Amino acid sequence: MVKVAVIGGSGYTGLELLRLLARHPAVVLTAVTSREYDGKGVAEVFPALAGICPLHFSWPDPAKLTQLAEFFFVALPHKTAMAVIPALLAAGAKVVDLSADFRFRDRAVYESWYQEHTAPELLAEAVYGLPELYREAIKTARLVGNPGCYPTSVILGLAPLLTNGLIDPQSIIADCKSGASGAGRGLNLGMLYCEVNDDFRAYKVAGHRHTPEMEQELSRLAQEPLTITFTPHLLPMSRGILATLYATPRQPLTAEALQALYERFYQQEPFVRVCPPDTLPTTTAVRGSNYCDIAVRLDRRANRVIVLSAIDNLTRGASGQAVCNMNLMLGLPEIQGLDVVPFLP
Amino acid sequence: MVKVAVIGGSGYTGLELLRLLARHPAVVLTAVTSREYDGKGVAEVFPALAGICPLHFSWPDPAKLTQLAEFFFVALPHKTAMAVIPALLAAGAKVVDLSADFRFRDRAVYESWYQEHTAPELLAEAVYGLPELYREAIKTARLVGNPGCYPTSVILGLAPLLTNGLIDPQSIIADCKSGASGAGRGLNLGMLYCEVNDDFRAYKVAGHRHTPEMEQELSRLAQEPLTITFTPHLLPMSRGILATLYATPRQPLTAEALQALYERFYQQEPFVRVCPPDTLPTTTAVRGSNYCDIAVRLDRRANRVIVLSAIDNLTRGASGQAVCNMNLMLGLPEIQGLDVVPFLP
Amino acid sequence: MVKVAVIGGSGYTGLELLRLLARHPAVVLTAVTSREYDGKGVAEVFPALAGICPLHFSWPDPAKLTQLAEFFFVALPHKTAMAVIPALLAAGAKVVDLSADFRFRDRAVYESWYQEHTAPELLAEAVYGLPELYREAIKTARLVGNPGCYPTSVILGLAPLLTNGLIDPQSIIADCKSGASGAGRGLNLGMLYCEVNDDFRAYKVAGHRHTPEMEQELSRLAQEPLTITFTPHLLPMSRGILATLYATPRQPLTAEALQALYERFYQQEPFVRVCPPDTLPTTTAVRGSNYCDIAVRLDRRANRVIVLSAIDNLTRGASGQAVCNMNLMLGLPEIQGLDVVPFLP
Amino acid sequence: MVKVAVIGGSGYTGLELLRLLARHPAVVLTAVTSREYDGKGVAEVFPALAGICPLHFSWPDPAKLTQLAEFFFVALPHKTAMAVIPALLAAGAKVVDLSADFRFRDRAVYESWYQEHTAPELLAEAVYGLPELYREAIKTARLVGNPGCYPTSVILGLAPLLTNGLIDPQSIIADCKSGASGAGRGLNLGMLYCEVNDDFRAYKVAGHRHTPEMEQELSRLAQEPLTITFTPHLLPMSRGILATLYATPRQPLTAEALQALYERFYQQEPFVRVCPPDTLPTTTAVRGSNYCDIAVRLDRRANRVIVLSAIDNLTRGASGQAVCNMNLMLGLPEIQGLDVVPFLP
Repeated sequence: MVKVAVIGGSGYTGLELLRLLARHPAVVLTAVTSREYDGKGVAEVFPALAGICPLHFSWPDPAKLTQLAEFFFVALPHKTAMAVIPALLAAGAKVVDLSADFRFRDRAVYESWYQEHTAPELLAEAVYGLPELYREAIKTARLVGNPGCYPTSVILGLAPLLTNGLIDPQSIIADCKSGASGAGRGLNLGMLYCEVNDDFRAYKVAGHRHTPEMEQELSRLAQEPLTITFTPHLLPMSRGILATLYATPRQPLTAEALQALYERFYQQEPFVRVCPPDTLPTTTAVRGSNYCDIAVRLDRRANRVIVLSAIDNLTRGASGQAVCNMNLMLGLPEIQGLDVVPFLP
Repeated sequence: MVKVAVIGGSGYTGLELLRLLARHPAVVLTAVTSREYDGKGVAEVFPALAGICPLHFSWPDPAKLTQLAEFFFVALPHKTAMAVIPALLAAGAKVVDLSADFRFRDRAVYESWYQEHTAPELLAEAVYGLPELYREAIKTARLVGNPGCYPTSVILGLAPLLTNGLIDPQSIIADCKSGASGAGRGLNLGMLYCEVNDDFRAYKVAGHRHTPEMEQELSRLAQEPLTITFTPHLLPMSRGILATLYATPRQPLTAEALQALYERFYQQEPFVRVCPPDTLPTTTAVRGSNYCDIAVRLDRRANRVIVLSAIDNLTRGASGQAVCNMNLMLGLPEIQGLDVVPFLP
Repeated sequence: MVKVAVIGGSGYTGLELLRLLARHPAVVLTAVTSREYDGKGVAEVFPALAGICPLHFSWPDPAKLTQLAEFFFVALPHKTAMAVIPALLAAGAKVVDLSADFRFRDRAVYESWYQEHTAPELLAEAVYGLPELYREAIKTARLVGNPGCYPTSVILGLAPLLTNGLIDPQSIIADCKSGASGAGRGLNLGMLYCEVNDDFRAYKVAGHRHTPEMEQELSRLAQEPLTITFTPHLLPMSRGILATLYATPRQPLTAEALQALYERFYQQEPFVRVCPPDTLPTTTAVRGSNYCDIAVRLDRRANRVIVLSAIDNLTRGASGQAVCNMNLMLGLPEIQGLDVVPFLP
Repeated sequence: MVKVAVIGGSGYTGLELLRLLARHPAVVLTAVTSREYDGKGVAEVFPALAGICPLHFSWPDPAKLTQLAEFFFVALPHKTAMAVIPALLAAGAKVVDLSADFRFRDRAVYESWYQEHTAPELLAEAVYGLPELYREAIKTARLVGNPGCYPTSVILGLAPLLTNGLIDPQSIIADCKSGASGAGRGLNLGMLYCEVNDDFRAYKVAGHRHTPEMEQELSRLAQEPLTITFTPHLLPMSRGILATLYATPRQPLTAEALQALYERFYQQEPFVRVCPPDTLPTTTAVRGSNYCDIAVRLDRRANRVIVLSAIDNLTRGASGQAVCNMNLMLGLPEIQGLDVVPFLP
């Protein structure tokens, strides 16, 4: 059993890690940190975990933690994450970072959207943790930058089209909708129940930080620099992202060819399901699982390709993908601990 | 007091008409029909209306109804609506039809998306009931085809841009999200609580019947035929539509110029509110009201205009707009009975 | 037009007051205070009120406020309320206080459940603002203590039984369920969307501060001191309270006699609707209105009376009732500005 | 691997069985029946199960089914269940019936609340499938009547009190609240999304069929016949039951003694968690799991015991408990396949 620890275990991605790791057959959770809950029992803070997680939250002291575990999930806010990670690596541990701090190859891009990078020497080595694109690199990585939730849904949705050069790379529009858990578990007036319930809205229009992350990966797939329009929206539900993606074909396409392309592209992938032609993705069909469900459609009248891509933002969009990356980094079967049946209704 | 009747009063748009008409100071509701509830008290079926609506549902018999009222709201499904309306008009009544039957100028377009039109002689006379575009024509109309919910949000959102020739008419994408009441009050497995709650999905991708309705009006505004991509989605909430609209500018634009354009375009309109530059529309900010809240944004990086437009699908998207059309057709103040404060939280 | 002001206008009860007062035909709102939003436009904080409320939030300075208005709604937390109210009264104004500060006749009871009372000299004069019980006293009051939301639903539900001595006064159990707006608009981890959505729980079991308020009024109706069991629960919805009330009959009863008793008791009341024998109250049937819907049932097998009572916690449970009290205090028609049709779906 | 089949797999309890059985390490699902979906792929009907359940729905033909499986879950409506089960047993299979048909010892009680019993010869042999009370009998049973959802929460909540004679057996009130999945997946106007969302109501007051089931088991625990008051309510959420239980102590009690009693009573039980004194059960803390979380409180002022009991109505209240019974009947570890971490947020 590999000893693993979660640094920053009191938020929703931390909680989701605890849920998944509790039943993982090859690892044992030895520490969970939280400055806020330091010393409190995990089951005291989250009664759902009574009888499941016997640990107490501890203070995030890297020196002590590297005594306790050899693999780390860092579920801290960006900036805080990169302050902790170098010490973990220096002690010989492997790390999946769920913040944005190690997702960018280009330090300048990170710094123009976030802040100064305090561990730039690690950027070249960090691997972008999307297994469908970087499986081999992840297997040998010490440090994986776990993708953002929106980017996961968008990149997986568009990869078959861009890889095959079928769409105009500058024509991409990503209209994405996320459940409220994406905003985290911090105090925020706008996230009170009565502010979110029965409401729907866009936010950070043409200015969300996941934009450059998407562009980095989509540009690489397109083999040319591209710029996208990305609009995030807040859904009145807890979990789930649906990305509705639009692009202009470069050449005449048929619905049948598109369907076949997607099925072929993801044929070997355990966590991507291409919907049959008469089915569209829904967020509940992937809820609690590591699946990304994708459908591709052709709008013949307006000559556009429309791709629908659904994930659970906390599982495939964060903690499930992080566990998948851990499996790869530790040489474990990729789906171990992730064979969760989607939770519905 | 003008005597009005609601034909088809057992669905959600019928119920919304009852809510609004109950407090309208210039009209009195004299009949509400329902085949299903014929003979039952309205308050028996909808206990919320106890002490408010003393009527009983009656059978939709045009001959009797035209004895009881001089103005009619027809809230029947399409096809059924056009079977009833000619008799009402022949008896001298005025009609607002909430179905799709009288929204199309071109019979062929209607028939290719719906079915054979059985009262085509009325199509030339029917006025499309969007007051911001057709106020004067509505005032003298006998028959108004009340706009669809999605088209209302999309047309109002794009009118300033198209009227001023600022965008490429072929570049329009309308990514729209609606609350569940848009699906009506019929029995439908997919609309059960447990199927909708916590779920989000697109439906009828590249094939929804509101597409040609939008195209009819947008083409007229653009003064050229255009084709759009329209994707409807189902939100886990009861009321509200948010349309996120994308288009490519024909010429360089600034955010300030766009803001000024929208404010000027809708300056005199009582039911359109252009959001200030730091505010985005939300569905709760218009809930239960006849408002359409609109924001316009420029995505400078990707060179796209993004418009956000929010309405209540049952009020502005159906019954509130119908009452507004009635006000105009009867020579009443346009906002009478519609000065409802949005309902939140 | 009477000039009125709202002190503490940034919470949900404040917002509900703004909604109701905006359309009240006999009053004009001249000031709304908020320490947090001092100087900001009301419509800037609540975009739903754009075009409806032209005011800016101001600092709660009693000396200035009594220049601007002659009637005050105090929607502050308890303790803060009683610090402000004496100055308003001293300046000749009338006040409805929505906090708990002036609901208790017995200072000791207040102080044992809340804290030291700093304006005890006003307790004797303050009237408990439940119009069905204290209508005449309210009409001549300077200061009304507006009832709590749970007590409103419970007292109205039980008044016919206790007034007629039909139940054992010591047998009362009030199992109450409230929407999340009852917790207010303050920052509170437990009220985040993801903590409330899809969840249901009891809270403050056998210890909620509304218990002594209910007991004060129920004891008076029973003409003997009584103690109740009260259990509040948090519903995953924004508005609405349903009280399920249990009591043991003192003598044999019939369902018909109970139904007749309730109908008779509330026959003249504009804001209480006794459900017919085959209908049960629902929170949506009263949503946004000042109604209290009540049904009474007899459990013949177990020999218990069960009463169901539904209100909107923000309207009848707070701001609607406050406006009703204002109407009475100002000699206006009791229902003025409150003829709102319940909002559904 | 034991071959098991689900008869009636298209409803929510059937779907929950599929979810749990898909990951059960000791059984293999060989057939799922549905008259409605006969011949369709399970994953076609429930896209969430794509890649997980390769079966097609088949017609419920007992002769064929007993060739395919040796253990059956019958998730049919009552009446239909007892028409199928005798043939399964006659063929040597074991059965867990999720309907009410085999929950009653006394045929007359069943027939007075349901209808004529068509397999009364099996009533004496059938075991009531609540493992905490009937573990040993379940292990050797051929036929288990799986408890109702409400009864599970109520019986587990009261067992420690009644077993120890601490409360007046005639004083019990069960105020229960259930999520909408309890109403099943059938077409029902009252269960449409817009009818349930944001609403709360009681239903079948003093007349729900789970009443005699509770009374049968509670009477046995009390060792005297008792009658209870049971009020079910419908929550605006998909899953979960919270039972709030009231009873009058027979003798003076302390909170500490009650807490100790409950902890002792359930000490060895893998699926009952007694909450610590400062924690109350919530439905999300057990969601998707087989846990029943229980808290006991003393209302000293009114001298009542209050018990809060939370389960997931589809898991512990139906399919999870059914799998637990299967484990016992097959000699498998009781928790096998049921070590699911509660799903939140």
